[in-house]
Amino acid sequence: MNKQRIAVDMDEVMADSIARFREWYGRDFQLELTLEALRGKNPHEAVAPEHQPALRAYPNAEGFFRDLPIIKDSQRVMKELAEKYEIFITTAAMEFPNSFLDKYQWLRQHFPFLPWRNFVFCGDKSIINADYLIDDNAYNFDGFRGVGLLFDAPHNAHETRYRRVCGWQEVATLLL
Amino acid sequence: MNKQRIAVDMDEVMADSIARFREWYGRDFQLELTLEALRGKNPHEAVAPEHQPALRAYPNAEGFFRDLPIIKDSQRVMKELAEKYEIFITTAAMEFPNSFLDKYQWLRQHFPFLPWRNFVFCGDKSIINADYLIDDNAYNFDGFRGVGLLFDAPHNAHETRYRRVCGWQEVATLLL
Repeated sequence: MNKQRIAVDMDEVMADSIARFREWYGRDFQLELTLEALRGKNPHEAVAPEHQPALRAYPNAEGFFRDLPIIKDSQRVMKELAEKYEIFITTAAMEFPNSFLDKYQWLRQHFPFLPWRNFVFCGDKSIINADYLIDDNAYNFDGFRGVGLLFDAPHNAHETRYRRVCGWQEVATLLL
Repeated sequence: MNKQRIAVDMDEVMADSIARFREWYGRDFQLELTLEALRGKNPHEAVAPEHQPALRAYPNAEGFFRDLPIIKDSQRVMKELAEKYEIFITTAAMEFPNSFLDKYQWLRQHFPFLPWRNFVFCGDKSIINADYLIDDNAYNFDGFRGVGLLFDAPHNAHETRYRRVCGWQEVATLLL
């Protein structure tokens, strides 16, 4: 029997891009972007109106996706999942064309057990054919043919329509 | 009712990468790579053994995918198809990470009517959820859940397992 297939989002699920927003916001404005301020909001919605254009531009800036911290337990649990399931990485990279190479290299460096043939850089994730999608953005479950698992993140705190998983240990408990 | 969805490969279907192989082979070895020699073969299989490493390396070289000629009728027919179907571009770009930006920019330039949200850079195309896949490589139909349409190219001359389409006008006749 074929293995079931899990599609996994990158940002806020494997790679901590919120850490980069907080780092650069501190660097540019000498202010702290707290996790409390980010609750239920995208980063640019959590700052003063005059700072919003800068935050909107961050993900397209050189180096934003480079050397991002790794989300806790993601390497260990995905390595275990890869024994039992087919794992694909499905990231909405098309929105930020300057991120392509950084994202590719980050995956090769930190998740060398995943084959590059299973990396997918896309936009609209309804094109993904998988049994599960682990993602922090609920809109990516629209039109998805499998089961959506909402990976807990500050911005999605108020989303209630999908099964929420709080961290990779909970993913392991659910799927292993 | 939702539109049916067509996934379309880039190389040898929208973009003429064989033209680039022939151009660079002539530049580097002062020899002609004829379409007859390419029949049933990949480019590196159609040349002398001592030239094969060079041809294998071409697709990873700077600029290989830049300014590729456009396959005849592809713009016109895809524009018509886009009225009736959802079109996604699904290219196995992961094999050539240096191609990402060139492929993205080529699509934006020559197919501006296609939304970037519908671009997919992948490896294994069994991840694609679509009703049709138009592709010149039959192995991309393995595990594909829809109907594979084999776009005629010199290298796939001997493939008989799939419905062959000889050019975009035939795609139009079939799907419009």
